Amino acid sequence: MENFDFNNPVKILFGKGKISELANQIPINAKILVTYGGGSIKNNDIYNQVMANLHGFEIFEFGGIEPNPTYETCIKALDIINDNNINFLLAVGGGSVIDATKFIAASANYVGVDSWDILAKSGEVKKAIPIGTVLTLPATGSEMNGNSVITKKTTQEKFAFGSPFVLPKFSILDPEYTYSLPKHQVANGIVDAFIHVMEQYLTYPSNSPVQDRFAEGVLLTLIEEGQIAFSTDAPNYENRANIMWAATMALNGLLSVGVKSDWATHQIGHELTALHGLDHAVTLAIVLPGLLMQKRDERSVKLLQYAERVWNITDGTDTEKMNMAISKTEEFFKSLGIKTKLSDYSIGSDTIDKIINRLEKRGVKKMGMQQDISLEEVRVILESR
Amino acid sequence: MENFDFNNPVKILFGKGKISELANQIPINAKILVTYGGGSIKNNDIYNQVMANLHGFEIFEFGGIEPNPTYETCIKALDIINDNNINFLLAVGGGSVIDATKFIAASANYVGVDSWDILAKSGEVKKAIPIGTVLTLPATGSEMNGNSVITKKTTQEKFAFGSPFVLPKFSILDPEYTYSLPKHQVANGIVDAFIHVMEQYLTYPSNSPVQDRFAEGVLLTLIEEGQIAFSTDAPNYENRANIMWAATMALNGLLSVGVKSDWATHQIGHELTALHGLDHAVTLAIVLPGLLMQKRDERSVKLLQYAERVWNITDGTDTEKMNMAISKTEEFFKSLGIKTKLSDYSIGSDTIDKIINRLEKRGVKKMGMQQDISLEEVRVILESR
Repeated sequence: MENFDFNNPVKILFGKGKISELANQIPINAKILVTYGGGSIKNNDIYNQVMANLHGFEIFEFGGIEPNPTYETCIKALDIINDNNINFLLAVGGGSVIDATKFIAASANYVGVDSWDILAKSGEVKKAIPIGTVLTLPATGSEMNGNSVITKKTTQEKFAFGSPFVLPKFSILDPEYTYSLPKHQVANGIVDAFIHVMEQYLTYPSNSPVQDRFAEGVLLTLIEEGQIAFSTDAPNYENRANIMWAATMALNGLLSVGVKSDWATHQIGHELTALHGLDHAVTLAIVLPGLLMQKRDERSVKLLQYAERVWNITDGTDTEKMNMAISKTEEFFKSLGIKTKLSDYSIGSDTIDKIINRLEKRGVKKMGMQQDISLEEVRVILESR
Repeated sequence: MENFDFNNPVKILFGKGKISELANQIPINAKILVTYGGGSIKNNDIYNQVMANLHGFEIFEFGGIEPNPTYETCIKALDIINDNNINFLLAVGGGSVIDATKFIAASANYVGVDSWDILAKSGEVKKAIPIGTVLTLPATGSEMNGNSVITKKTTQEKFAFGSPFVLPKFSILDPEYTYSLPKHQVANGIVDAFIHVMEQYLTYPSNSPVQDRFAEGVLLTLIEEGQIAFSTDAPNYENRANIMWAATMALNGLLSVGVKSDWATHQIGHELTALHGLDHAVTLAIVLPGLLMQKRDERSVKLLQYAERVWNITDGTDTEKMNMAISKTEEFFKSLGIKTKLSDYSIGSDTIDKIINRLEKRGVKKMGMQQDISLEEVRVILESR
């Protein structure tokens, strides 16, 4: 096990009806900016429930945050914050709304010239407006971590930042708030969480059995609960609760302590979203099988462990077992209705060239936290899809 | 899954050499009381390393905290705190030292007449002196939770309290700090952590697959790493690191979210320690197999899951599988050198009578968080041991 620090002070309020505890989590006299997305929360009563539980607070609103939230949208919130002395942000939505709110919170207190530098130039976040969240889409884990991914529309760039200052003070996770999600968003969430775990697990052995088994536990749960979710039409509370908790645990920092992480699938996937607007989870489902196949023999120890413990594959040669595990992984994504080939989205070799060029221009030579994936391999991975 | 709140802000600094980050975790100008036990830290250089890394702080000391720490010892620290305006407590030791330090921290700010009421009468903790810990014995999880168990010598009572105010601000976990532990203390720690998990897992099904698999992951790790620890004489870093992290995860609140917990094994075990001074882990190893056998058929769903997933028992009738799982559990404790029968400690039926009487006098009628264990069953459990 490698040395690590772990500190996750986010307070989780989990379960049906937990919205009733919202007001108690927010400082008295807070001037709150409620942030949200395209307005679905106004159709499914979540907006009304949030507002009813903020009685007595001074409230402002900032809606219209898009999926893969943009810098251009986020900075529009800064005027509202400055004009009204907002001192608390309440994100009501999924990972996009929460990520955007984190960037807004950091931008409002950023001392540099342009807060895009937080993303593009690792500009230091020294302070942020405190945030709370009401989660409506289990997927990114953003409700229990200090990470955020933002896209700049004008340059088609998608970058991430992380800071303890944007860790939510609290997050309300009510599984019933996911009932009105369209099926493809439930699928996206499951795949997103699944690949978050894989980024922290399917790398190199580091003799960390607790972390490995926690990762496998989340993966197995997502597979089982994903199948349940897609075998019935009516949402089931326990099923949605298990998916929600699994997705939160998938990326709250616990799985990656002391182990080797990767995140190359995300780095490549971000390019596909930036260039073609594909759903984040879709890009991951495209890239991961190719990446696992490309790094198969180097990562054989963990891949064989994954094959046996997650997919119960015990017969065949090592190569056969690993191939079977990669194939089962891709089949799982497809079983949730997610297509996993670039051609399914009419994306051709010109995009691959463009991605390699963009990465080269940014000075990227190798990828993954172990720096074990060259740009040539990125090309092979994308060409195999 | 049941509704729950989860909030664990303890900062963990894990790994060899982490003591070098000690000073940065403590407020400048802190007046620190360093608390410790019988002085083993002075023989194994941990004391020196702690002091070397507190250079520049004003430091006071309070040693001599015993295993199963007593109220009588703890309150002696209060004069030192008051006389010197101590505003930070640094516990250097295992669960006993940390638990005692939590009680001292709460007592120093207790507004009632006698801080024993915190334990005996659920006296409210509204404030506590901030605490940090340097862990030397992985076992209780006290380094990452807000719980504490204290014994009153004069009345032979052992009670627990919990408060978010006594959550450590940070805990330094260096596996090398466990190298000088005698084997029986390593064994105690493994068994203690194992049974902490069982208290949160071996109860009733609640459709919480993430929590179940996390629990099983910690149990499997403790079994495997326990065997490794006892198969070699020289301590091994990875082995000690895995035991340490497993013990911390066993009782930091994560395993019990949304599920049904028990804690009856602890409640019965505390009586054995209070009356006979037995090591805490030893009392748990005595009680648990009897309790599992007594509740076997009522808890069959989880017991069968435990049999299959933790002990790989798949053959036989359900009853045979459960019996085998209970037997394997007891064998595991014995394989670490822990004797599991009351007669091994010359404890007879008079003690059983005394325990039942004491519980009756306190108005205890049923036990366990599901209140599914009667005092008559407590008698049967103890008589079976």
